[in-house]
Amino acid sequence: MLDRVTEISDAAGTRWLSDTELAAWMPFSAMLMALITALDTQLRRDAKLSLFGYFVLAGLSEAPERTLPMSQVAVLANGSLSRVSHAVSALERQGWVTRHPAPSGRRSTLATLTEAGYAKVVASAPGHVETVRRLVIDPLTKQQFGQLGRISEKILTELTPGGECARE
Amino acid sequence: MLDRVTEISDAAGTRWLSDTELAAWMPFSAMLMALITALDTQLRRDAKLSLFGYFVLAGLSEAPERTLPMSQVAVLANGSLSRVSHAVSALERQGWVTRHPAPSGRRSTLATLTEAGYAKVVASAPGHVETVRRLVIDPLTKQQFGQLGRISEKILTELTPGGECARE
Repeated sequence: MLDRVTEISDAAGTRWLSDTELAAWMPFSAMLMALITALDTQLRRDAKLSLFGYFVLAGLSEAPERTLPMSQVAVLANGSLSRVSHAVSALERQGWVTRHPAPSGRRSTLATLTEAGYAKVVASAPGHVETVRRLVIDPLTKQQFGQLGRISEKILTELTPGGECARE
Repeated sequence: MLDRVTEISDAAGTRWLSDTELAAWMPFSAMLMALITALDTQLRRDAKLSLFGYFVLAGLSEAPERTLPMSQVAVLANGSLSRVSHAVSALERQGWVTRHPAPSGRRSTLATLTEAGYAKVVASAPGHVETVRRLVIDPLTKQQFGQLGRISEKILTELTPGGECARE
């Protein structure tokens, strides 16, 4: 439905994509969906872990004392707080994460990676990294992978944690 | 967990990412998750439709007689056949899609977009297109968006429908 209207803006003011824009958007959107699915599939199959769960565990493994406020966990997994809360509950049931009130008395909840959770990340990382390399890095030239990083940074500035734009 | 080991390959043979590779991978992976979430959030909020469901409806709207075999629907939504089947069931309950056996006698199932489904895509497209433009196209130069399209095509060649690589 993006390519039925070729003029840039119709009566309702919608700025439809031009043919040139579609030629970039179609492969990009297909790649987005396919890559997320492929990374998720590998982790579920080999590590019984979702991509979202992996991002949470890996992020905590890098944090000071392997601990972050839940609001920061939402940022690193780029999900809404309610969605992250649900995902962290699942990780907690597996014994990989614990949640506890912040000791400062501030009304926030902290998430901490357990030893078992750390072992889980260490065991899951090699398969994930190999998949990333095979699907994303190996097919590109070094120059292209660098371009992809810079392009991603520019798109990220439009996106706020929680997945919606600050302007909305 | 991708940046703890800086050597290219460790004793177990894992080809960890170099600092340069990490500098591209980290924003790219964050952008992937955040963009999917943002596109999904806009569609759920404004059109009561998931991003996955939108891709299915939009793909059918472009097909001859607005009909595709379910195996092709899986390709366009880049999901596994079982996941797509589940998603199409939800679209069927809304009255937007019907499923029926292929008339040729081949043992395949076809999915057809209904008139209500077509109207749903037409009504949902402008908000989706505006979000795509605002979050992805406007922040980039034309050259960068073109690079992104070509990079995506190269990554797509490594990805097969169903979300996993043919080599596995």
